[in-house]
Amino acid sequence: MANFGGHAIPGTFFLFYGFWLTVKHIRQHYWRTSQPKGRQNMPPFLKRMEYFEGGLQIFAAFVGIMVEQFVVDGPHARLYDKENNSWVKLMNWQHSTMYLFFGIAGIALVASTASKLVPSGVDRFTLSLALFVEGFLFYYHVHSRPHLDAHIHSLLLVAVFGGSAGTMLEVFMRDNILLELFKACMFILQGSWFYQIGFVLYPLSGPQWDLEMHDNVMFVTMCFCWHLAIALLLVTFTSSVVWFTLKRCSGRGQDIEIGMRKTSSKASCQKALLEESDEE
Amino acid sequence: MANFGGHAIPGTFFLFYGFWLTVKHIRQHYWRTSQPKGRQNMPPFLKRMEYFEGGLQIFAAFVGIMVEQFVVDGPHARLYDKENNSWVKLMNWQHSTMYLFFGIAGIALVASTASKLVPSGVDRFTLSLALFVEGFLFYYHVHSRPHLDAHIHSLLLVAVFGGSAGTMLEVFMRDNILLELFKACMFILQGSWFYQIGFVLYPLSGPQWDLEMHDNVMFVTMCFCWHLAIALLLVTFTSSVVWFTLKRCSGRGQDIEIGMRKTSSKASCQKALLEESDEE
Amino acid sequence: MANFGGHAIPGTFFLFYGFWLTVKHIRQHYWRTSQPKGRQNMPPFLKRMEYFEGGLQIFAAFVGIMVEQFVVDGPHARLYDKENNSWVKLMNWQHSTMYLFFGIAGIALVASTASKLVPSGVDRFTLSLALFVEGFLFYYHVHSRPHLDAHIHSLLLVAVFGGSAGTMLEVFMRDNILLELFKACMFILQGSWFYQIGFVLYPLSGPQWDLEMHDNVMFVTMCFCWHLAIALLLVTFTSSVVWFTLKRCSGRGQDIEIGMRKTSSKASCQKALLEESDEE
Amino acid sequence: MANFGGHAIPGTFFLFYGFWLTVKHIRQHYWRTSQPKGRQNMPPFLKRMEYFEGGLQIFAAFVGIMVEQFVVDGPHARLYDKENNSWVKLMNWQHSTMYLFFGIAGIALVASTASKLVPSGVDRFTLSLALFVEGFLFYYHVHSRPHLDAHIHSLLLVAVFGGSAGTMLEVFMRDNILLELFKACMFILQGSWFYQIGFVLYPLSGPQWDLEMHDNVMFVTMCFCWHLAIALLLVTFTSSVVWFTLKRCSGRGQDIEIGMRKTSSKASCQKALLEESDEE
Repeated sequence: MANFGGHAIPGTFFLFYGFWLTVKHIRQHYWRTSQPKGRQNMPPFLKRMEYFEGGLQIFAAFVGIMVEQFVVDGPHARLYDKENNSWVKLMNWQHSTMYLFFGIAGIALVASTASKLVPSGVDRFTLSLALFVEGFLFYYHVHSRPHLDAHIHSLLLVAVFGGSAGTMLEVFMRDNILLELFKACMFILQGSWFYQIGFVLYPLSGPQWDLEMHDNVMFVTMCFCWHLAIALLLVTFTSSVVWFTLKRCSGRGQDIEIGMRKTSSKASCQKALLEESDEE
Repeated sequence: MANFGGHAIPGTFFLFYGFWLTVKHIRQHYWRTSQPKGRQNMPPFLKRMEYFEGGLQIFAAFVGIMVEQFVVDGPHARLYDKENNSWVKLMNWQHSTMYLFFGIAGIALVASTASKLVPSGVDRFTLSLALFVEGFLFYYHVHSRPHLDAHIHSLLLVAVFGGSAGTMLEVFMRDNILLELFKACMFILQGSWFYQIGFVLYPLSGPQWDLEMHDNVMFVTMCFCWHLAIALLLVTFTSSVVWFTLKRCSGRGQDIEIGMRKTSSKASCQKALLEESDEE
Repeated sequence: MANFGGHAIPGTFFLFYGFWLTVKHIRQHYWRTSQPKGRQNMPPFLKRMEYFEGGLQIFAAFVGIMVEQFVVDGPHARLYDKENNSWVKLMNWQHSTMYLFFGIAGIALVASTASKLVPSGVDRFTLSLALFVEGFLFYYHVHSRPHLDAHIHSLLLVAVFGGSAGTMLEVFMRDNILLELFKACMFILQGSWFYQIGFVLYPLSGPQWDLEMHDNVMFVTMCFCWHLAIALLLVTFTSSVVWFTLKRCSGRGQDIEIGMRKTSSKASCQKALLEESDEE
Repeated sequence: MANFGGHAIPGTFFLFYGFWLTVKHIRQHYWRTSQPKGRQNMPPFLKRMEYFEGGLQIFAAFVGIMVEQFVVDGPHARLYDKENNSWVKLMNWQHSTMYLFFGIAGIALVASTASKLVPSGVDRFTLSLALFVEGFLFYYHVHSRPHLDAHIHSLLLVAVFGGSAGTMLEVFMRDNILLELFKACMFILQGSWFYQIGFVLYPLSGPQWDLEMHDNVMFVTMCFCWHLAIALLLVTFTSSVVWFTLKRCSGRGQDIEIGMRKTSSKASCQKALLEESDEE
């Protein structure tokens, strides 16, 4: 997938996943802080979010593997070409392997939401592992490329391994909102950096970048920090919006409970209200 | 032991050990979750498993050292050849050193099961150390080899040091089933990767692998991830089988306790039942 | 800023910040140890210290960015020069990026002091991130320089990443005075080392240093350890002075409370007393 | 100190310190496990051990610095030779710096034993720092040496940084006997490895070692693991002897308390008894 689209598709996926994680974890955090201590079971609407996320992961991983294998110039599930004594399209096989581990993370998420027998933390552990495998394969991916190309990919690894380490910590420190938002931030950073890689290596317009120029390497390093700052900003902004929406709507929700329905309640809260009422 | 057999033997050992660990830790976890909080002492059948494991480790390490020393082309306990001014069969001595540390881990396991005076965690600590020493010796083992040979051995180190780190964490986080299964998974991965090294470097049939070809390196990296996925699958499958067997049989076991023996109880549960009854 | 002044300014800043952190954390520690367990809210004068620190960080970061951009030979907010097809003054842009993250840390500190909604630890996390970004940019900064120049800058990274790691630990281990003073110590070390870099690379008087001479590298490594020893000494000394001043004055403070004002109270305690009395 | 004696002296020191730490920590552990929960203050004889250790560290560091500076071919406190434009005996200055940090660790140990105001863990933290500084200076010490010389010194770093990391963990996990014995083990390993370096680089008899021969490097790596095994054995043996001596003697000690002095009590227990009785 050595073109702009090949970097924009995973970038979009990771960006969306980062925002989804922000919303999910803020909802969980809101629920945790607003419930009295005694209540431990996750309410149905939070469970449904987990099922949805896990199911989507499995589905996306399956589609990803199929596409990588059966696109026109793909390997069509053939690994070794005996006639030419060569491996067939190893790049597509590598991408399939990455998708496989995200699929495994999806299965673990569904399983650990569905059953109490699955040890808690398996979902985070497998997600951490999926990120580790992604970084691991990328690491050996970038050898013997031009300087800027190798550098811009190795910066991606900072986001990937940062996310992997943060998620691994979550296995042992549960319900730490800071770690959860850090994970979301790393996914957004990874997503936006995929776009940046696409723009630098396959510019849509204008001249090609000089892949050996030192100033370009220096700019790209700095640009990565800007992406990080923007990712922090986006996570903070999204978190605040979700938190205050929840607060405003659940305030109304409590009003309903004590029988003082107000006709002026805005439509924008309806969906949230419905979900909240599941909780009752 | 530069042949296929020399990689298959440790591979088989590590594979079996990985499965053994899975079974042992699931049994311990089952016992932990099914007992009321007050009961702390490990029941006799779990202790017996520890003694068996420790004893086998000591025995295997002893046999391993003896074989490495006294095979036909071994060093026969001679370290330095004064006539030729050279070391005698350092490779065999290195393997003996690795076995020694697994033997020490076995002794620590037996000692910490037998006596409460031994600080808890010594068994995990020595196992972690044994893996560290294995990785440490391997690390200086792979210098100045062909590219693929060095790479395939350095991938082994990921499994070895991963297992070592996980086991070290267990010293401080006791009874964490996720860490325990991770350790088992790393042993299975190590075992299956030993086989893979054997297949690649000493193919039983077909042509030799080109040890400098970049595509081979790329395939082997990806193949390591597949081994990891299979190891995860095997641990999950084994865990589930052991767990549900325990559940089915211990359900019957409780029936027996309240005097409602059913004649239809299957023979396959007999052994487990006997062991469970030790617990009473 | 390749001159002595360009290293003395950040050095002075970091030195002052290190001392400020020592004073602040000792005051917090004193308050923590002298209060009964039940009282949890931070008293107003400690909150005011946090607001002051955060505000100053934001202000300093803003001024820093402005200066870097609009000095006579700065980039004047222009990033790319289309005429010459080159980046404009990337060094100034890099320094602006570093300041930006310290500004973000300031915002996080103010926000987490002002509102309980902000998850606890965000202030430490962002400070750790600011140090990480500083180190990250410096790391790619020192490539292809003379030996001594690269070495002296890479020693700076020990202080920067050491501080970053310590501050990250503070996210998870709150109110650990040892970690807090370690952070202060790393800032003082960083500050004094900036001065040392200035003295070595741009000597105010005397001959230039030989940037490739091995003995110079060896001396500089050792000198870094001396700076560390001095930083430890300074933190210990400052801590002791602050602690005993607080103790002497608060002793008097309590006397006042029970109505036994002594006319001999020294003026030097007045300010501290006023702040203490905020607490009541 | 490029001769056998120059390696034997620190080696002897570290060996003794390792044994001392084993004895001290086993005594502390014995006291911890034998006291009821309510009693928290360390008894006088354990405090005296800490004072003795700290005092000896300060004294040894002071003597070490003086010797390094004022031996016949030492720098005599002169750092820079203006006539020749060269540094004076930087190696001696480096060793002085290492001693300085062990002296600081001694001061911290005395201070934290004497006063409750000193934050707990400062003694471990400074000891960890002293080891880090030792490793840090050694790391830049071994550049551009023959292969075997560099390798044998870098193996020393495994013991040094291992000890530093273990001691740092002790800051956060107090009274963990496993970590404490690990620290002792790393000191013994470091001590015995200093002797090994002496034997290899400055053989007392026999031919010189070939410093570039690959087999020598391989042997030395393996030999390090044997030293580790022996260090483990020594710590285990010493711990057991100390523990059972304490147990036998304190059993008698309790007899004395309830007035049943037996005239057959052996003289070997007298000293221990006297110390135990301090505790009452």
